[in-house]
Amino acid sequence: MRTGIATVCLSGTLKEKMQACAIAGFDGIEIFEQDLVTSPLSPEEVRKMAADLGLGLDLYQPFRDFDGVTPDLLKANLRRAEAKFKLMSRLGMDTILVCSNVATATIDDDELRASQLGELAELAGDHGVKVAYEALAWGKYVNDYEHAYRLVEIVDHPNLGTCLDSFHILSRDWDTAPIEKINADKIFFVQVADAPKLSMDVLSWSRHYRVFPGEGQFELAKFMGHVVRAGYTGPVSLEVFNDVFRQSDVERTAVDAMRSLIWLEEQSAKWLESNATAAASEQKAASRRRYPMELATLPKVNEPAGFNFAEVKADDTAQLEKLLGQLGFEFEGRHRTKDVQLWTMGQARVIINEQAAQHAEPAIAALGFDVDSPVIASARAQQLKAPVVARKVQADEEVFQGISAPDSTEIFLCQGSPDGTAAWTHEFGEGLEHPGSDVSAVIDHVNLAQPWQHFDEAVLFYTSALALEPQPFAEVPSPSGLVRSQVMETSDGSVRLVLNLAPAQQAQTARKTYQEHIAFAVDDLVATARSAHTRGLEFLEIPANYYEDLDARFELEPEFLATLKELNLLYDRDANGEFLHFYTATVGSVFFEMVERRGNYDGYGAPNAPVRHAVQYDSLHRS
Amino acid sequence: MRTGIATVCLSGTLKEKMQACAIAGFDGIEIFEQDLVTSPLSPEEVRKMAADLGLGLDLYQPFRDFDGVTPDLLKANLRRAEAKFKLMSRLGMDTILVCSNVATATIDDDELRASQLGELAELAGDHGVKVAYEALAWGKYVNDYEHAYRLVEIVDHPNLGTCLDSFHILSRDWDTAPIEKINADKIFFVQVADAPKLSMDVLSWSRHYRVFPGEGQFELAKFMGHVVRAGYTGPVSLEVFNDVFRQSDVERTAVDAMRSLIWLEEQSAKWLESNATAAASEQKAASRRRYPMELATLPKVNEPAGFNFAEVKADDTAQLEKLLGQLGFEFEGRHRTKDVQLWTMGQARVIINEQAAQHAEPAIAALGFDVDSPVIASARAQQLKAPVVARKVQADEEVFQGISAPDSTEIFLCQGSPDGTAAWTHEFGEGLEHPGSDVSAVIDHVNLAQPWQHFDEAVLFYTSALALEPQPFAEVPSPSGLVRSQVMETSDGSVRLVLNLAPAQQAQTARKTYQEHIAFAVDDLVATARSAHTRGLEFLEIPANYYEDLDARFELEPEFLATLKELNLLYDRDANGEFLHFYTATVGSVFFEMVERRGNYDGYGAPNAPVRHAVQYDSLHRS
Repeated sequence: MRTGIATVCLSGTLKEKMQACAIAGFDGIEIFEQDLVTSPLSPEEVRKMAADLGLGLDLYQPFRDFDGVTPDLLKANLRRAEAKFKLMSRLGMDTILVCSNVATATIDDDELRASQLGELAELAGDHGVKVAYEALAWGKYVNDYEHAYRLVEIVDHPNLGTCLDSFHILSRDWDTAPIEKINADKIFFVQVADAPKLSMDVLSWSRHYRVFPGEGQFELAKFMGHVVRAGYTGPVSLEVFNDVFRQSDVERTAVDAMRSLIWLEEQSAKWLESNATAAASEQKAASRRRYPMELATLPKVNEPAGFNFAEVKADDTAQLEKLLGQLGFEFEGRHRTKDVQLWTMGQARVIINEQAAQHAEPAIAALGFDVDSPVIASARAQQLKAPVVARKVQADEEVFQGISAPDSTEIFLCQGSPDGTAAWTHEFGEGLEHPGSDVSAVIDHVNLAQPWQHFDEAVLFYTSALALEPQPFAEVPSPSGLVRSQVMETSDGSVRLVLNLAPAQQAQTARKTYQEHIAFAVDDLVATARSAHTRGLEFLEIPANYYEDLDARFELEPEFLATLKELNLLYDRDANGEFLHFYTATVGSVFFEMVERRGNYDGYGAPNAPVRHAVQYDSLHRS
Repeated sequence: MRTGIATVCLSGTLKEKMQACAIAGFDGIEIFEQDLVTSPLSPEEVRKMAADLGLGLDLYQPFRDFDGVTPDLLKANLRRAEAKFKLMSRLGMDTILVCSNVATATIDDDELRASQLGELAELAGDHGVKVAYEALAWGKYVNDYEHAYRLVEIVDHPNLGTCLDSFHILSRDWDTAPIEKINADKIFFVQVADAPKLSMDVLSWSRHYRVFPGEGQFELAKFMGHVVRAGYTGPVSLEVFNDVFRQSDVERTAVDAMRSLIWLEEQSAKWLESNATAAASEQKAASRRRYPMELATLPKVNEPAGFNFAEVKADDTAQLEKLLGQLGFEFEGRHRTKDVQLWTMGQARVIINEQAAQHAEPAIAALGFDVDSPVIASARAQQLKAPVVARKVQADEEVFQGISAPDSTEIFLCQGSPDGTAAWTHEFGEGLEHPGSDVSAVIDHVNLAQPWQHFDEAVLFYTSALALEPQPFAEVPSPSGLVRSQVMETSDGSVRLVLNLAPAQQAQTARKTYQEHIAFAVDDLVATARSAHTRGLEFLEIPANYYEDLDARFELEPEFLATLKELNLLYDRDANGEFLHFYTATVGSVFFEMVERRGNYDGYGAPNAPVRHAVQYDSLHRS
């Protein structure tokens, strides 16, 4: 698949954008006109720079408001087009995007439109230019890709074809199957963008909320499957703009973009595999490469089987040790060569890393996931452009395959075991006795705060590299704004990751109003809480008003309610089961949660989240 | 008018919210249930705190999903309601908001709903509570205020009335005239919120985009006019939540909120005045106070006649002096008692203030506006809670009435004169000769960057205190994101203020990518540019590609195009006229623009803004 990206997707100057595209490994780019008009680089300099960077200049765009106009306007439009054709020749470019008219069309007549597009194609032919005509979702008369293609068919000129843009097609809910009927020679270009499903006017949706494939909810693999089946072999190019990308680091966005195309390529191949038509099956029998477009494959991974460990880091780790001890974790000793400690409770393993920078507050540093094959999983992640994290190891020590998540959390791909144990634990506490624990506990979920610039990127990262499934997102009120909460989990819930997008902080206040946490699941939360209480654990203190409201909502047994209140436990119930949980006080930016899932309760106690946020806000504010 | 605000409008803890409401001067508040549930304050403590702060506790809210349910659910709902009634008695509150059912209603039958609401009213009566039933815009079966009122009429119980919420009514485009037919005794509460007109699902619109009255596009004065004519005399309370307020400083938001109600009160009175019905006219003749609700009035001002001056400030003012001199401004000398200089060009007056903090870069510090009466204008602004700015004056010097705009720009209300001169200029350059200038120039517009937290507040500030009219906003692409641009102007265009909301910057980069500027209008821009060029002015350098594109779009005379290109002039044209302009290089965060308006061109060269942003970005990035 030939990969491309429009310069409008990226922030910065044209030069910065082109360099970032080359670094990320794109085959070609679309030149967004405004980027050229505002650039001090001459067309010839742009051409040379692209050649030096190994970037194809695949599409000049956009040319607006051409068709369906009065003769006067047509004349001016042809003059304007010819100026652009001449410019393209200086750039060494041969394809221009012409969008269906939004602003100046006054005549709704396909014959007239065809005749005007024919004149344009003829002029383009004189300059060696191919015109890719695209139906904008909000085009005045032409807003449907099949309509645009009908016009191309009527004109029947070698220099006129169509451009298919997934956003303009899927935002309008047009059926994508008819793409297969389009003559592949007439598809001059394909643009892809994803988006969250929003119910709003399509122009604002397009302008503010497009995201890279895999970061939204469009059925892009299916769209691409139809495009591939049509026989298209040209560039598949990203045209994505939203309020975040344009403000983000250009090189990083380019890598995120490239990752989305690599992932889309794999997903498209999978879609084709599982949606093979009879005809396609025959073709498959005849040849391994079923379609003209070659779709690269990635190393295959299953979803992780569980958390292998979680790692917290601090300069002074005393508070962390105290909290874990009070929760009932056992100290399993220090590592034989590194300044790290291991604490366990059943199969829940927490590493305390003492190698933090001076004065660094406690924070979540790393997560280990159980995978079938760490090497294959790492190869996949690296092909998806995940940065590699190196860990020093001594002889005989387990080599962890590590990658860096968008928020800089280190992700380690570990060899899972059928019984949930981890082979590397023997590297800790040499000479210490390790009595078998009788407590059954696991890491239930981990909640990571995401910087706003990298939230969508993180969703794609965990989807593509770790095979986690994004769930519908929720918004939780906190005293300082709505917290967007995105659950990523495996189908059986054995790995649950919650990505929280904290509200932007006021620059003038230093208050940190959001933290991260690790939650452990136990079989008997009340007993766990009682023991922790005895050991002196500082619980997050839940207001009395909460228990009154809880009673009004759930009509609980008075004795049970009294226990909840006494131990600062939170409670939730739904049709599937019950959920009990409590939180510790926060140290640095970390706190811990203990949960008990009863029945098939599958959530996270979302109705209680505002209480947690408010109490944490209040205690930070008082301190 | 009794003013109120829901605690959900504000950030922070319940205690912080209540204190801020008292400081801003609200008569009462609505307690948002979650704020109480998450608070460590007991109901009795909240009651005492409200009494101490002089705040009425006017509404407990919301009670959700009551009506149209199965008998089982009804029983649980009544139990839940009774718990809340008891809680309200501890709070000393007598009115509760009950929203039409969204989630649990399964039976669409008005008779059943009425019977269930009747049971609720009966129970409420036992506890001395009044139920205000409100139709949510997205209620499952009841989403129209007239429908909600019909149910209230059917039940006909003294403890059941309705709540009118402007958002739920205007977002659905319901006709507001029928409000007048509602029995005033049955209107238990009125909530107001404004919003920009967006085409999106009403729940997301409500949750993220509500703004205070005067900051959006709803016809709130008309809504309130009908409410007043209905005979309602209770609280008018703000229920506004969006992504900005909840993250902003609580006291400041409360003041912004209060300003919006004061302004709404005046606008409602105006609406009633100009929409007097025959019946109302008779009533007016009979009595000065026409309606039971008393609407306070504000000192009246007309829109300003022009800019009196603009002031820039710096520690080292040499660069500013150089720029103004090169542009053709005359140095009119220093002030006789202060460290400020006056520079003029025709009626365009720029004060350079040298009293800046050490190392302070050049920045726009103040704007003077010509008003009919500075004292009346200042009184109005102060009643609208604008902070006062004091300036030291010596005997015989003009006393400026100053207020502080939301972005901290100082706004001075100056005595205008018919010929556009300013009396205070004689305080400058004593002993210097002041040859009459033959150049005709005025301040055309000023462009101020707004912090994102104060953008909506700024719109209301300039609307209410300075009588400027907000125009539809535009979004301008820049290399680091979309810049939201909001023009505020007088009806004749003699004062034009452009408020720009710069994209949030990446925390990790220190690059400043957005600046403010002052634009001056002259009669002959080409001549002005030539003279400035001769004086060595550093123009913002416009890329050659821009002129090629300009020619493609406008087919300009080759000689004219060559002049534009030679002098780095920008050009725009629309049906009304032509616009020529150029920019200087930036010093600190300020640059200057020179413009020439030909014909009736009324814009700001918006198509050229991306060029300016890109070139400024590029030059900052290179330096």
